[in-house]
Amino acid sequence: MLVNQIGNGLSTSANNAPEPISGGHFPKVRIEDDVKAQYQLLTAHFGITQLELVVGGSMGAQQTYEWIVRYPDFMRKAAPIAGYAKNSEHDFIFTQTLMDTISSDPHFKDGFYDQAEMVPALKRQGNLWNVMGYSPEMFRQKAYQALGFDTAEAFAKGFTEEYFAVMDPNVLQTCAWKWQRGDVSRNTGGDLAAALGRVKAKVFVMPIDHDMFFIEEDCRLEQELIPNSEFRPLKTIWGHLGLFGMDKGYLDQVDRHLKELLSL
Amino acid sequence: MLVNQIGNGLSTSANNAPEPISGGHFPKVRIEDDVKAQYQLLTAHFGITQLELVVGGSMGAQQTYEWIVRYPDFMRKAAPIAGYAKNSEHDFIFTQTLMDTISSDPHFKDGFYDQAEMVPALKRQGNLWNVMGYSPEMFRQKAYQALGFDTAEAFAKGFTEEYFAVMDPNVLQTCAWKWQRGDVSRNTGGDLAAALGRVKAKVFVMPIDHDMFFIEEDCRLEQELIPNSEFRPLKTIWGHLGLFGMDKGYLDQVDRHLKELLSL
Repeated sequence: MLVNQIGNGLSTSANNAPEPISGGHFPKVRIEDDVKAQYQLLTAHFGITQLELVVGGSMGAQQTYEWIVRYPDFMRKAAPIAGYAKNSEHDFIFTQTLMDTISSDPHFKDGFYDQAEMVPALKRQGNLWNVMGYSPEMFRQKAYQALGFDTAEAFAKGFTEEYFAVMDPNVLQTCAWKWQRGDVSRNTGGDLAAALGRVKAKVFVMPIDHDMFFIEEDCRLEQELIPNSEFRPLKTIWGHLGLFGMDKGYLDQVDRHLKELLSL
Repeated sequence: MLVNQIGNGLSTSANNAPEPISGGHFPKVRIEDDVKAQYQLLTAHFGITQLELVVGGSMGAQQTYEWIVRYPDFMRKAAPIAGYAKNSEHDFIFTQTLMDTISSDPHFKDGFYDQAEMVPALKRQGNLWNVMGYSPEMFRQKAYQALGFDTAEAFAKGFTEEYFAVMDPNVLQTCAWKWQRGDVSRNTGGDLAAALGRVKAKVFVMPIDHDMFFIEEDCRLEQELIPNSEFRPLKTIWGHLGLFGMDKGYLDQVDRHLKELLSL
């Protein structure tokens, strides 16, 4: 089962919610709100009381961590991919720079904007993703040429900036605010070791080696706090946005680890 | 001898040049313009025809590379610290995001601004430096606390943002445009191996291991193209802005390598 996160533009979000929570009035939402709603969906709506595997990438990893800490008896296995149990200070600041590309634009008007006027700001956010979303190694190897772009500039503008140019700014702000504050230690009064010590699932912690903001070493330090866990880093020069799946080798690694986890 | 680079706010720059090259009319300048001017200063003004050592960090490294390629007989030794001979595509894009914080602000007015109105844009640029200028490891270890800041936010705002808040936007744009285009292969029709193959000086190539935009591995690949060179990476979790000197251990490494180089 794949559930859209709250505020992402497809689930209930700033762009589709009714008054009084539409547009710039959409409320702040946390990772735990997603997980609580998903729990309710599974139990009350579908009558499911046990999951074999919880898995997700990026903010999906944040949700995975929240799941295994908040409902430790609910799943047998879990695999957070490229995300933290408790967000880092460095990543918080990076996410702030993303949000600032939008909020600093005078056309934003506290969330009550004309979408067309926000395109330059959205492209500036896209360009930050060019810097942090892949890796210097990807650019050095010109791996973007496999996607049909001759130059880094053509890729940066034609792929990444265009990807963000059509997004809804309020949706990006909702998700970024939530992403910044992902932290399972909110379940245990700020004690991360206590929170991760609760986990009963068998966990494969799967960072991406070239990820520039969910850092492999930070993920390893969290993995060490989880009783029944293994460290399974994924190798791709595509960095965090390897999650898009442009690197077949990366997808093969994910499949291999998940198959092994499911076979245990 | 320490020479300010053209356009940096102390040498002839947008903020101090007379009409018709003041403010937003200040011309684009390249690394090679700096090096040609420095050569003229040394030879025509001081009558110096030989240097023992050329050394510089960041854009100073770019100038160092330009020196040893353009005037290969002029120095016996050289040490580029945390910079490239030919700038990378990834770094070009990072630098563009810095420039965009300024040029996207409606108060910029093509370089004819009121400085006070540019402070928010300058702080946004400062925050990008928080993301890319240090390293995730520095934040994880809370090394900023040694500078007297209790929290990452206090450091990010009180140190880095304030550092940039007082800078002249045109000066930053002049330097960033120059930084983006540093490339010694302009001396050899685009052939980097031919350019670095010219070098006669004994060279220590000294990247910073946690530098997020002048990457250690990219520096190593350039070092391999320099005939009489050694790879001497510097270790500091402060990343690129370790150049500021807040890490005594980093400064000790620089001293040790330079002393060894001078003793050869």
